[in-house]
Amino acid sequence: MDIAALRDAHPDHWNKATAIRTLAMDAVQAANSGHPGMPMGMADVATVLFERHLKFDAAAPDWADRDRFILSAGHGSMLIYALLYLTGYEDMTLEQIKNFRQWGAITAGHPEYGHVKGVETTTGPLGQGISNAVGFAMAEEKLRAEFGPKVVDHYTYVIAGDGCLMEGISHEAIGLAGHQKLGRLIVLWDNNDITIDGRVSLSDSTDQRARFAAAGWKVLSCDGHNPEDIDRALTAAKGSDRPVLIDCKTIIGFGSPKKADTSGAHGSPLGDAEIAVTKDIYGWPYGPFEIPDEVLKAWRAIGARGATARAEWEQAFGKLSGTKQAEFTRRMSGQPPKKLEAAIRALKKQISENAPCVATRKSSEMVLEVVNEVMPETIGGSADLTGSNNTKTNGLGVFSPEDRTGRYVYYGIREHGMAAAMNGMALHGGVKPYGGTFLCFTDYARGSMRLSALMGVPVTYVMTHDSIGLGEDGPTHQPVEHLAMLRATPNTHVFRPCDTVETAEAWELALTSPGTPSVLALTRQNLPTYRVEHKVKNLTAQGAYVLAEAEGKRQALLMATGSEVEIAMDARALLQAEGIGTRVVSLPCWELFEEQPEAYRRKVLPAGPVRVAIEAGIRFGWDRWLFGERGRREKSGFVGMHGFGASAPAPELYKQFGITAEAVAEKVKSLL
Amino acid sequence: MDIAALRDAHPDHWNKATAIRTLAMDAVQAANSGHPGMPMGMADVATVLFERHLKFDAAAPDWADRDRFILSAGHGSMLIYALLYLTGYEDMTLEQIKNFRQWGAITAGHPEYGHVKGVETTTGPLGQGISNAVGFAMAEEKLRAEFGPKVVDHYTYVIAGDGCLMEGISHEAIGLAGHQKLGRLIVLWDNNDITIDGRVSLSDSTDQRARFAAAGWKVLSCDGHNPEDIDRALTAAKGSDRPVLIDCKTIIGFGSPKKADTSGAHGSPLGDAEIAVTKDIYGWPYGPFEIPDEVLKAWRAIGARGATARAEWEQAFGKLSGTKQAEFTRRMSGQPPKKLEAAIRALKKQISENAPCVATRKSSEMVLEVVNEVMPETIGGSADLTGSNNTKTNGLGVFSPEDRTGRYVYYGIREHGMAAAMNGMALHGGVKPYGGTFLCFTDYARGSMRLSALMGVPVTYVMTHDSIGLGEDGPTHQPVEHLAMLRATPNTHVFRPCDTVETAEAWELALTSPGTPSVLALTRQNLPTYRVEHKVKNLTAQGAYVLAEAEGKRQALLMATGSEVEIAMDARALLQAEGIGTRVVSLPCWELFEEQPEAYRRKVLPAGPVRVAIEAGIRFGWDRWLFGERGRREKSGFVGMHGFGASAPAPELYKQFGITAEAVAEKVKSLL
Repeated sequence: MDIAALRDAHPDHWNKATAIRTLAMDAVQAANSGHPGMPMGMADVATVLFERHLKFDAAAPDWADRDRFILSAGHGSMLIYALLYLTGYEDMTLEQIKNFRQWGAITAGHPEYGHVKGVETTTGPLGQGISNAVGFAMAEEKLRAEFGPKVVDHYTYVIAGDGCLMEGISHEAIGLAGHQKLGRLIVLWDNNDITIDGRVSLSDSTDQRARFAAAGWKVLSCDGHNPEDIDRALTAAKGSDRPVLIDCKTIIGFGSPKKADTSGAHGSPLGDAEIAVTKDIYGWPYGPFEIPDEVLKAWRAIGARGATARAEWEQAFGKLSGTKQAEFTRRMSGQPPKKLEAAIRALKKQISENAPCVATRKSSEMVLEVVNEVMPETIGGSADLTGSNNTKTNGLGVFSPEDRTGRYVYYGIREHGMAAAMNGMALHGGVKPYGGTFLCFTDYARGSMRLSALMGVPVTYVMTHDSIGLGEDGPTHQPVEHLAMLRATPNTHVFRPCDTVETAEAWELALTSPGTPSVLALTRQNLPTYRVEHKVKNLTAQGAYVLAEAEGKRQALLMATGSEVEIAMDARALLQAEGIGTRVVSLPCWELFEEQPEAYRRKVLPAGPVRVAIEAGIRFGWDRWLFGERGRREKSGFVGMHGFGASAPAPELYKQFGITAEAVAEKVKSLL
Repeated sequence: MDIAALRDAHPDHWNKATAIRTLAMDAVQAANSGHPGMPMGMADVATVLFERHLKFDAAAPDWADRDRFILSAGHGSMLIYALLYLTGYEDMTLEQIKNFRQWGAITAGHPEYGHVKGVETTTGPLGQGISNAVGFAMAEEKLRAEFGPKVVDHYTYVIAGDGCLMEGISHEAIGLAGHQKLGRLIVLWDNNDITIDGRVSLSDSTDQRARFAAAGWKVLSCDGHNPEDIDRALTAAKGSDRPVLIDCKTIIGFGSPKKADTSGAHGSPLGDAEIAVTKDIYGWPYGPFEIPDEVLKAWRAIGARGATARAEWEQAFGKLSGTKQAEFTRRMSGQPPKKLEAAIRALKKQISENAPCVATRKSSEMVLEVVNEVMPETIGGSADLTGSNNTKTNGLGVFSPEDRTGRYVYYGIREHGMAAAMNGMALHGGVKPYGGTFLCFTDYARGSMRLSALMGVPVTYVMTHDSIGLGEDGPTHQPVEHLAMLRATPNTHVFRPCDTVETAEAWELALTSPGTPSVLALTRQNLPTYRVEHKVKNLTAQGAYVLAEAEGKRQALLMATGSEVEIAMDARALLQAEGIGTRVVSLPCWELFEEQPEAYRRKVLPAGPVRVAIEAGIRFGWDRWLFGERGRREKSGFVGMHGFGASAPAPELYKQFGITAEAVAEKVKSLL
């Protein structure tokens, strides 16, 4: 590649792109850690995108109608940090760039959502960004259909590398995007032919262009170092009726004599000497972190050029009716509607009166019927288990290329892609996603579920068939360790409600959570209603509470969640019949119980009585409640699973695995 | 579809296929649960495959050179159960078929490996079977290269549905298979256009044929109900230099007037009335589970037809040298070579003498250098982190279409595909797979890792960068909950060695484990050698042991794993300097410690001293060792993580998160 010729042909572009390249080189060098090669390779593409196409205003990073820019290849974080600094995002100072990857800096090793405006989602785990982007684009389509193209009219641009495209999640994402014909989604593939282990040809021979075409995408390509060619491709990408892949042929570590086009440019500093030589080749006689004034000025002008469009948008927005403006503002803020609280309360009252005996997956549907009525922002879905997850309520409509007002997504058999899309929708704002699969298949969605937690995105996972109660499908479909796994995940609320009232309360907490994702673990099998006395207060918000007090002297305390609360209540009846006073504590959300004042926790779990925990999962984690809060090791026990399940009707499984009221009563008596 | 015409055109075939169909209908009806539609739709394809192509001998299901048949669409389990019964697999009696999905029966809801010969792998979680199959085909290629085509010469056939093809893991699998040009892999796609939610067109528009072609596959198609057309396609598929997809156009619930071609045929019994009508249409005047003698006889002949080929194989095998025969037999049995024990012992001695200060990922490489020398069956790899996982030792060679003797696989950025392929290789037998990625990205591989545990497949996961010790890459790459998640998984050994000696011991246990997968959690950062006194005994096999005894009165007991053992030892020095006698317990494998006699556990963790656990992960699960084994709640503490990590150099992170020797010493003193 003749760099001098490129520089001479497009000197202004060259300087802008080189500012990115050198900031990346310098920051990685200063940190002695990081990934310079990708920003060096994609600087030209990013420069053209930001200079000529991306709709944004650095002074108003929260502008609802901005184009979204997602760096799916998150290891190239210095690319986005350089762009944010150069275009003038307030928080992204040169000091932050100099403190790349240091404690307390907003310039983390990978772009972290919430650290700095302009980073729309946390990326780094490969394939997540491109899959979030599908959700961003879906949210845009839905809001455009609702609020009109004068107020919602933007693109989602993604930079993705070979790693993103090799990850399985990308298959789910591009399939979903292609099917949904998300024409506002434009993916720029950093086709540099290099992975960490070496050339892509070491491990992959996929024809990516043909693959995307097979998934219904429009496919374009460009020379990723030629600004005019990049511009041509980006121009051609817009106005498409399908999502667009632009194959950008690039050279990793562009310009570095020793590292360019090798995996050596990927994840290590270039070294001072190589940086010096490379800057010479660039024709860039500046020291570390030094950007000449005129280059910075040119970049800042790019950062400001969106002000006009934004002003026009403000005008258009001002022309909406007051109600519509308020609704749009509320929706983008993530605030639930005021009506929600009263609606849930009324439902709880009605449930307590009717006391239905239904599976909590059905309870969840009953709640959703009410919720979806008062919350137009919900967008539900399932990874091809609609009838099992009970996620589709009446009148939601189906989100499709033909109907963007539809509020139900047939995600297909794409658990990971669904979770990532939900993250993207929630991050975009204006919509409130929930989605379902079997609890066991959280295994498939883990990568994105962890990011919900890390980013603090309050999406709701509707995970049904939450134990051996699933029955005949057998151990591949029966979660036993999954409650423990989810409870182990920081910033995740795991709700396992015992009846329809608790389910309503869990949904209320999920829908009003500002920054914590929720998992609802729901049964396949029917459960009685225990909360027959209506309480305005959301008892599930305390995480645990006394569901049934001991009669007579309190000798035993049974703790349970979900479907095993029924077993605890039945065991209590057996024990009380023998004169053994037994309290039953329902523990629908450990995390919220942990957050209660110690005094409350001790009140619910007092010292003294024998304690037995009952859950149709493994014991792992339960010692916290058995031994903690003044529990006594020698006076406590667990009734639950000790390994994987089996295939048989659910009642038989409970019996065979010894999770019965009789077994609980026996366990208590053996400890008295 | 004119069923009468089909029946009349191929009456013998029709009867055989209908035997499958009706057994599936009857068994699902009897169980009142299951999936009749898929076996009904794929019965013709399966009949032609078993009758004319599959190399097998029902009387010798362990024959090493049999073709492997994998039902990736595991919900169609009655298809394989019917085939095994009809062809005469000894354990698959009609009684078992009648007890489909009942407690104690081998006919589980989804095919479970180990329940019955002929089920080569556990399927049900979609996409796993097709991805295991890639490993089966790789193992076949490798063994053929080693032992010659007279002894190893078989195909891997897969039946996969739309669900398998939509799952992300399938992308990783077909990319790997295409790149590796696995010509012995033939996938029969049950293209019935139906998923649980309805028509495939509800959620997907992918051109699967184009997609597979883009991944380097040969693509064929056939009418999945025409035996001659199926035969033609299968014949054309063999001898390919690339993996082959056969697009079998089928009708789900074939023949059922009300359910065929609808999702209603997928996951529910047809109902007695519909079964009666359907049998009428089939021209099948037989009761439930009734197979006419001549049809059963014809099927049994198919089950026996492989006897000749097997006899020939036995002859060919007999012509190998005695050494080669013994080696092949050992390899297929999964027995490690006798030399392994001595080699590990010698290495341990040498390490104890040299006392290296290296990262345990480097320790692992040192062990692998020795292991790979004495175990020709190992086949290593990494999901594009070779230089970070230290999984490639000298002279392994690279497994590729050009060199099938290579023992290292560049898996690409395919964690899930790698794990599934390793399961497949281990199930095939003859090879011993291990593979690496960062511990955090177990999230991406969970689906297959759970199946390693459920099936009892002793693969080894080399998971490096096992904590915030990873440093600057930040929280997306730093596991905090993953040790808990893996420990929560039944039948999984999680090793977190503290030095090179423990790493060698962990590897020895992993390589000799008969039926439990192992996860090695290894550091990025250097650690000193603590095991400087050589012991022949594998101390890690006990799960935990006293690494350093208290001097003077034992007042404190520190428990730690991996890199935090160093912190425990440093804290011990601080405490001993203040006259506080402190024991340090290294706990490299909880599961093995749990299996020890209580007396041993109590000896290692005696009542009395203050207990502090130290681990750079969350506390979840630690209460087992803090409170249990006569620990006292009020005299115990934990030093570790309380949420997600951050991006900064590792030493800074340990300091900022308070995981230091000083913090441990303070915690101990506050509890005394």
